[in-house]
Amino acid sequence: MQIEDIILTYEKDLKLVEEFLDKEQNSYVKLIPQISSHIIASGGKRLRPLLLLISSDLFKYCEERRHVLAAVIEFIHTASLLHDDVIDHANIRRGRAAANKLWGNTASILVGDYLYATAFRLLTEDGDPVVQRIISSATTTMVEGETIQFIKSGDAEITEQEYLSIIEKKTAILMSASCALGAALAGQPQESIRTLSSIGLKIGVSFQVTDDTLDYVGVKEEFGKNIGMDLREGKMTLPLIWALKKGSLAEKEAVIKIIKHKSAEDEDILTIIDFIKNYGGIEYALGKAAQYIGEAKALIKSFPDSSARKYLLSIADYVLNRNN
Amino acid sequence: MQIEDIILTYEKDLKLVEEFLDKEQNSYVKLIPQISSHIIASGGKRLRPLLLLISSDLFKYCEERRHVLAAVIEFIHTASLLHDDVIDHANIRRGRAAANKLWGNTASILVGDYLYATAFRLLTEDGDPVVQRIISSATTTMVEGETIQFIKSGDAEITEQEYLSIIEKKTAILMSASCALGAALAGQPQESIRTLSSIGLKIGVSFQVTDDTLDYVGVKEEFGKNIGMDLREGKMTLPLIWALKKGSLAEKEAVIKIIKHKSAEDEDILTIIDFIKNYGGIEYALGKAAQYIGEAKALIKSFPDSSARKYLLSIADYVLNRNN
Repeated sequence: MQIEDIILTYEKDLKLVEEFLDKEQNSYVKLIPQISSHIIASGGKRLRPLLLLISSDLFKYCEERRHVLAAVIEFIHTASLLHDDVIDHANIRRGRAAANKLWGNTASILVGDYLYATAFRLLTEDGDPVVQRIISSATTTMVEGETIQFIKSGDAEITEQEYLSIIEKKTAILMSASCALGAALAGQPQESIRTLSSIGLKIGVSFQVTDDTLDYVGVKEEFGKNIGMDLREGKMTLPLIWALKKGSLAEKEAVIKIIKHKSAEDEDILTIIDFIKNYGGIEYALGKAAQYIGEAKALIKSFPDSSARKYLLSIADYVLNRNN
Repeated sequence: MQIEDIILTYEKDLKLVEEFLDKEQNSYVKLIPQISSHIIASGGKRLRPLLLLISSDLFKYCEERRHVLAAVIEFIHTASLLHDDVIDHANIRRGRAAANKLWGNTASILVGDYLYATAFRLLTEDGDPVVQRIISSATTTMVEGETIQFIKSGDAEITEQEYLSIIEKKTAILMSASCALGAALAGQPQESIRTLSSIGLKIGVSFQVTDDTLDYVGVKEEFGKNIGMDLREGKMTLPLIWALKKGSLAEKEAVIKIIKHKSAEDEDILTIIDFIKNYGGIEYALGKAAQYIGEAKALIKSFPDSSARKYLLSIADYVLNRNN
């Protein structure tokens, strides 16, 4: 089953999520919805809302609250994107000009803060302590992950384990929370919540590893951002970490020289991409992503067969095989 | 009674607040407590925690929760300062180098996000919906206020009413929430919560008006930041708004020319300060601040006499008469 078919299956629910997103971002300070809708309306696949919806379907939970909480997760995700784009001086996001380029850093910082505050307000209105705990803990972890990534920026000594720990925190934790919420909303016991949390985490890690790989192989039109961007920002990702481990000392030193020297030329970027490809860095990273997806699918299969289970399995396949 | 005496009276409680601040900012990602303690330990008068403590004393409430919530308010305040300093390219905060100058914008944005998330986590643990609603609503309003201030930056047509509305939102709402929380913690009825909220709002507006006035008259050593900084950042504050209203068209045009031309010279700043002083802008603004403090004190006096009432009245006087 393709992701597009799942999106179609959840069309009505996703539309309700969109309506909440649209309604709740709507400050009387018009600049706020203008900027947040610029980034929210530019789409993305709404993977986190989808994970929450499908996870709750796994337990036959389909009350309206799930649309609100899917919107909450998407707001937190969007807030982090707005701040990330300021931090990375991003030019493009989801194929459109990044908000920071159109409205400046100040507006992006403030609208990010506003979306965090909005998510917090909606959770206050929801009032469920289990739900609040899952989301507040995930948000804290996410920011810690982004901070570690910043600290490790340009560090050629970073290990695979450190890299995996960073992406687990900065990316996977919110997908983990999305899945866990599905179980929590349905009033499932802690054990089910933990299993769903683990499924989401593994899908999330795989998502970020493939994302980082696409940065080296994607073409701009498909991926919505320039190739080699992570490298230009000093982000050490798995394909490069692998190649640095396998390459000769001389190669390693040459690469480090380019990384240390900010604002690398296109030619330098191509040199590093060749280096990565020569040592099979792309294949290694995709293999690692496949391993996580395998583990996720095994956990998904611990639930009895159902449409929701099929959708979760398909999402796992999609994360691994997507090319944008 | 001087503010120092009140701080001494609340020494034990403020120490507990400090302990919570210290403990709860303590991420294993060491850069986070390093930066947050840099700004938190640099002090300030802990006006918001004090307002919360005194307000709760007004209703004889003294349980430990109040120290946690005072820390929550201080975290939100600190988060907003970290982001403000990035936005304003601040060099100095509370007499020390601003965090953004020492660690860069990225670190300040992320640590601000972390403190927002920490406040949210502590509120989740507290679990009281009334408390959550007061703080989440105040946070949303605060960010909206900062956004309006950004939109109105350098706008010489801004009215006194617009200015007051901005500072009510960006500054006063958190002091308002601090006072309201004192009543809410004590389980007071909505009417009391509203009165305390109003007292805090008026104290907060007065605080920001005097703050904005100090920017024109303070000396660097006393005020902990450079003179005329607001002007350099395009912030239109009451002394200038008044003078622009009273001055001639030619004077107004000359001032606007300086404001529009970013990175004004010291000489230009002095020209504007003279212009403000010639039209009594400082006196007018301080008069407005006194009006708000008068209203706050009248509301405070609606409560029966007590030590807490005396402290609140003294805080109100302090806000008006402080010179740093």
